[in-house]
Amino acid sequence: MSSFLPKRFLSTITLKAGPPKAHHHGVLPASSFPAGFVLGGLHAGVKKKAGVPDLAVILSTSEHPTSAAGCFTRNAFKAAPVIVSDGILKRNGGYARAVVVNSGCANAVTGKQGMDDAWAMVSETDKLLSARNTHQFEHETLVMSTGVIGQNLPISKIVDGIRAAGSTLGSDFASWERAAQAFMTTDTFPKLRSRVFKIGANEYRMAGMDKGAGMIHPNMGPASTTFAGTRQLHATLLGCIMTDAAVSPRSLQSALTYAVDRSFNSISVDGDMSTNDSIYVLANGAASNGSAVIDEETSPDAYEVFRRELTVFAADLAKLVVRDGEGATKFVTVTVKGAPTYKDAHSIAARISTSALVKTALYGEDANWGRILAATGSVPLQPSGADGTVPVIDPTKVNVTFVPSDGSAGLPVLVNGEPEQVDEERAKEILSLEDFEVLVEMGMGGAGEAQYWTCDFSYEYVRINGDYRS
Amino acid sequence: MSSFLPKRFLSTITLKAGPPKAHHHGVLPASSFPAGFVLGGLHAGVKKKAGVPDLAVILSTSEHPTSAAGCFTRNAFKAAPVIVSDGILKRNGGYARAVVVNSGCANAVTGKQGMDDAWAMVSETDKLLSARNTHQFEHETLVMSTGVIGQNLPISKIVDGIRAAGSTLGSDFASWERAAQAFMTTDTFPKLRSRVFKIGANEYRMAGMDKGAGMIHPNMGPASTTFAGTRQLHATLLGCIMTDAAVSPRSLQSALTYAVDRSFNSISVDGDMSTNDSIYVLANGAASNGSAVIDEETSPDAYEVFRRELTVFAADLAKLVVRDGEGATKFVTVTVKGAPTYKDAHSIAARISTSALVKTALYGEDANWGRILAATGSVPLQPSGADGTVPVIDPTKVNVTFVPSDGSAGLPVLVNGEPEQVDEERAKEILSLEDFEVLVEMGMGGAGEAQYWTCDFSYEYVRINGDYRS
Repeated sequence: MSSFLPKRFLSTITLKAGPPKAHHHGVLPASSFPAGFVLGGLHAGVKKKAGVPDLAVILSTSEHPTSAAGCFTRNAFKAAPVIVSDGILKRNGGYARAVVVNSGCANAVTGKQGMDDAWAMVSETDKLLSARNTHQFEHETLVMSTGVIGQNLPISKIVDGIRAAGSTLGSDFASWERAAQAFMTTDTFPKLRSRVFKIGANEYRMAGMDKGAGMIHPNMGPASTTFAGTRQLHATLLGCIMTDAAVSPRSLQSALTYAVDRSFNSISVDGDMSTNDSIYVLANGAASNGSAVIDEETSPDAYEVFRRELTVFAADLAKLVVRDGEGATKFVTVTVKGAPTYKDAHSIAARISTSALVKTALYGEDANWGRILAATGSVPLQPSGADGTVPVIDPTKVNVTFVPSDGSAGLPVLVNGEPEQVDEERAKEILSLEDFEVLVEMGMGGAGEAQYWTCDFSYEYVRINGDYRS
Repeated sequence: MSSFLPKRFLSTITLKAGPPKAHHHGVLPASSFPAGFVLGGLHAGVKKKAGVPDLAVILSTSEHPTSAAGCFTRNAFKAAPVIVSDGILKRNGGYARAVVVNSGCANAVTGKQGMDDAWAMVSETDKLLSARNTHQFEHETLVMSTGVIGQNLPISKIVDGIRAAGSTLGSDFASWERAAQAFMTTDTFPKLRSRVFKIGANEYRMAGMDKGAGMIHPNMGPASTTFAGTRQLHATLLGCIMTDAAVSPRSLQSALTYAVDRSFNSISVDGDMSTNDSIYVLANGAASNGSAVIDEETSPDAYEVFRRELTVFAADLAKLVVRDGEGATKFVTVTVKGAPTYKDAHSIAARISTSALVKTALYGEDANWGRILAATGSVPLQPSGADGTVPVIDPTKVNVTFVPSDGSAGLPVLVNGEPEQVDEERAKEILSLEDFEVLVEMGMGGAGEAQYWTCDFSYEYVRINGDYRS
């Protein structure tokens, strides 16, 4: 749709600053960090500005085997660290005890040199492990990189940095915080969270960090996965979760895959999928106290609890990325209910979350349900009838409601396909909140329900990305 | 990917005005307009500003039967005029002799009242036909609306307008121009083109107008079509093409469907698909001079020529919409070659053309091939191997080239998957042109080739759409 008259002229605008975001980071109690991990972050020199952390090293010091799992970008142009880490996980059968991360350079589209550099990071970090434990496997380090595409890493600086990191690793809050800082690129605050949970009588912890801000619309799976006909067209998103539970490698991978689908694969800043998206989880058993290793077959109940905890935690980390999205002034939850299937609900929520017209309306604090509806109706649904028929949306059954985050009543704007007389004052009130929800009820009689987290599209986004390299 | 350091601060920016666009409209010779059509545009009062045309009426006055075909939005929330026109075309077996169009209000999501209003427009226009010819069918008018969603038409003003239009219709340039003006919403110039072509010894003409600017990412087909697994997630785009050739209804529809796929379905301004997208073609045979009706079965050669002429003409009209895209400062052709299939090439070109990161880089005149590559690699390809396997992109075979529109040499930025040492001066030269091409060669050994036309993503786009209703 378009407005009545051309509104184009040369004018000066003042960029609206988003809400302050630094308060989303704060001190976490040392007792909430998983046992048996040491880590740290330092300035290796990938980034130009002195003192800014750009290298993180995380080691498991547990006496138990440390299981590891990863979900990687489904982009055809996988960066070297993705290819190398996936290979190590496969070769080791799901075991790894270290993670090394650099920001400032993505080591993507860097050919053979890029592969050599990623291996150099792995090998140097392996030496830190050797100095502390006995090696189980030839290589036990997973690697991640984020930053500019198509440039080679300053590998000697990074190798020197890894060597220097060896003597600085710790397990206190400051160590976790420095590691999280080293993940950052356009992020405005470090993204670090921890969680204490129980399985039976045993208490465990998980903690992790992630980063992202632009090129955020991940679609990750175990690297061997190819696109299974999914229509998701979707940053560099990097994340790493550590827990002191003992989980079998295969169950750690299946729990992570499930959790990532419902967290990192359900966020969008700009609809662009990166070459480097990677999420790792390490489970070192340091708090298992001799209880059985968690496995979906041999201990399904324990597995179920672990998977739920991991999913909630991953969603918390994922939401931080959207909250800090490039230029974002709003954090918007898009909930779709009553679709034929989870997949349909997820596709509709994704389309609404990536619509440039919806996102500019959110920035303008405009209850433009017409754009939400147009986005909803543009999604091709999957055949799901008994006879393979494609379900058809009945416009007269669709509801759209704006739900405020302050607990006050929601504002229906479309009820059974008919526009409501909207109280524009009230709409403005809700839309001026930093957080709110767009609820779309499809009324298709299905149980398909999904949530997506997105942000608005602002002048600031254009500014950040229109002069990125200059 | 993201940059080295946060760049967020409150600042003032000056909106860069796009290139002037009015020169894309000029006087067309009367001899280039098809015989047997009268038309006009006037101010009926849908738009507030006095004198601005908001209602167009087009009538065929040919003595021959007038075939008609339409391609409509695949959005699940089809506006009333789409539903009504599709029904008329079906009931008449592909014949219609009038088109009525209003701008300022889309008559979308308007329930039963909306349907009644669309029918009222049809019936009133039918009366203009009756006053001139004998009725063949009960209803012979197709209807289109564009503007705000969810508001009812000021139907009595429109009906009065249609009645008043009856005495103002003409066939000179001024009449065509006023009709084209009545299509406009955020468009900055009327989009009108004509074309003279020959089939055998016979000379024909086609002329038409379209509109668009925002909510432009059409995916249209004959209305009965459902999404055939296409992953296109995609303004109101309205277009109407008139020709004085004689074409059978079924062949007119198949030629239009083919042409729309390679024109209107290959453009994107913002990736959003409207509820109202409609393209009509009317063929009234007024210049057929007794030659046989063109039909794909009985006169395949003539049909082939007609379809090619229609496709080229539709592409010309479609490109005008992109050129006038909301906030657009660039007109960019995205060409994908060497993909396994046309469909894969089209999907990749669509993804590059809708990537917010690519489009902001184009605005910033930044040769950011990394974003182009990330977009390319994020497209799930279709199974096309003999055994149903999904083809795999080999990054080491992919080339990306920026091709200037001034005929000078292209600038390769990625060759066989390896970044070139890019001459930044030369890159700036090409990217500062209003028109240029991004050529992506997939090197997959397939013949799949497709073009897409897109524009950049500017501050102005955010301004236009961030305060659309206010």
